[in-house]
Amino acid sequence: MKVDILTLFPEMFEGVFQSSILKKAIDQNFLQYHYINFRDYTDNKHNKVDDYPYGGGAGMVLKPQPIFDAIASIEKEETVKPRIILMCPQGEPYTQRKAEELAKEDHLIFICGHYEGYDERIRTGLATDEISIGDYVLTGGELGAMVVIDSVVRLIPGVLGNDTSAVEDSFSTGLLEHPHYTRPAEFRGMKVPDVLLSGNHAHIDTWRRKQALKRTFLRRPDLLENQSFSVEEKEWLKQWKESKGSS
Amino acid sequence: MKVDILTLFPEMFEGVFQSSILKKAIDQNFLQYHYINFRDYTDNKHNKVDDYPYGGGAGMVLKPQPIFDAIASIEKEETVKPRIILMCPQGEPYTQRKAEELAKEDHLIFICGHYEGYDERIRTGLATDEISIGDYVLTGGELGAMVVIDSVVRLIPGVLGNDTSAVEDSFSTGLLEHPHYTRPAEFRGMKVPDVLLSGNHAHIDTWRRKQALKRTFLRRPDLLENQSFSVEEKEWLKQWKESKGSS
Repeated sequence: MKVDILTLFPEMFEGVFQSSILKKAIDQNFLQYHYINFRDYTDNKHNKVDDYPYGGGAGMVLKPQPIFDAIASIEKEETVKPRIILMCPQGEPYTQRKAEELAKEDHLIFICGHYEGYDERIRTGLATDEISIGDYVLTGGELGAMVVIDSVVRLIPGVLGNDTSAVEDSFSTGLLEHPHYTRPAEFRGMKVPDVLLSGNHAHIDTWRRKQALKRTFLRRPDLLENQSFSVEEKEWLKQWKESKGSS
Repeated sequence: MKVDILTLFPEMFEGVFQSSILKKAIDQNFLQYHYINFRDYTDNKHNKVDDYPYGGGAGMVLKPQPIFDAIASIEKEETVKPRIILMCPQGEPYTQRKAEELAKEDHLIFICGHYEGYDERIRTGLATDEISIGDYVLTGGELGAMVVIDSVVRLIPGVLGNDTSAVEDSFSTGLLEHPHYTRPAEFRGMKVPDVLLSGNHAHIDTWRRKQALKRTFLRRPDLLENQSFSVEEKEWLKQWKESKGSS
C-alpha cells in the first residue's frame, strides 16, 4: 500500500512509522509512505498556507490552492484514482468497518489540517472521504491520520505475524473482549478464575463468551443492537437485565 | 500538568511532543512528561513483560507485576493520587467532555498496552479510568495516549494563544462546525457564498448557525439528541426533515 501524507508537520510521524507493526510493514515492503509539506506548493511569495476567514471570526483557514496543487503533483503519476481522505471533526466517524474498507485500497492520500479549518472547496472539490476518529478536538489531523494508517496497515494480509489475532480483536467480533489472565495464578491477593486453570476447554470457551457478552452489556450496550444471539445468550442477557432493574 | 507514560515504545511519542501545540505547552512549562518503560521493572531475569494466557488462546498477555511496580515507583513521590488511565478498546468511549474533565487534573498516568491485552488485575487493581478513543483496533495504546494528551493539554488555560478558538471548535458547541472560506472569492469555478462577502454580520451569523445545524442534521443527527433549539432552529429542522422524507 502506498500512503501520501499532506502535512505541515511531517516530523510528527517518524516515531510512529519507525516502531512496532508499522516499522515491520515498511521493512517488509507492505507499506510505502511519503510526506508532502503543502507549504512547498504555495504560489505566494511568503509561502502562506492559511488566510483570514471570509465573514470574520477567530482563527485562520487553510487556503485551497496549495492543497489542490500538492494533490495534483501526486495524481499526475497515477493511473488509478487514489482515495483522498480529509481528516476533520465533521467527517464520518471512523470504525473498524471503514478500516477494513480502506485496507483493500492500493493508494491512500491523507490531508492533515491545522488551524481553524479547511476552505470548504477542499472538502467539496477534492476529498473522496472525510474521516473523524472521534468526538473530541485535536490540534491537527496528524494524529488522526496515524490512527487510521495503523488500524488499516495491520489488516493487510501478511503484516501481522499471527492472522488469528486480528480476527479475535475487539470490534472484529462485535463484542468487547473477555478478560485475559496470565501468571501468576495469585498476584497480591487477586486470583485467576478457577475455570481458566481447569483445563476444560468447553467450560473455558463458555466462560469467555459469557464474560465478553456481559462486559459489552454493561459497558457498551449500543454494540449489541444489531447482533443475533443463541438461546443461551438470550437467557444470560435476560438475567442481567433483570438484575440491573432490581438493583 | 504532569504526565507519566508507561510504554514499551517511548520513541513513538517524541515527534508528537516536539511539534505544534504540545511543544509550545512543554516549552512554556504547562506540561511535563516522562516515559516509564515498564520492561525496566520486571522481576524476571529475561525482562519478560508478557506471558501466555491462562486457558489458552492466541496472543500474549501483559503481566501484572512490571506495571504494578512501575506505577508504585511513580506514586511513592506523590501526595495527591494521580489518575491512572488504561488505554484499551474495552474502555469508556473518549469524548470532549472527558477531555475537559481530565484537563482539570494535575497528574495523569497513561498505561499503554501492546500484544493481545492486559492481565485483568491491572484493570481491576490499578486503573482509575479506562479509555477507548474509538471503535477500531490499534496496535497499541500509544496513539490513543497521544490523542488524549493532545486534546487535554490544549484545554489547559493559556496553552492556546486565542482562547475563543477552543470554545468554538466542533463538539464544544455540540454541533459540527459551519463551512469556512478564505481567499480567493472564486477558485477554479467554485465561489464563496455571497452572504460571507456581504459585510452584514447578522446575516453571516444566521447563515453560519444554519449551516452548522444542517451539517450536523445530515451527518451526525445523534449529536442533536440532547440539545435545545430556538423557534427558528426548530422550523429549519422541520423543513429539512420534510425534504428528506420526500426525496
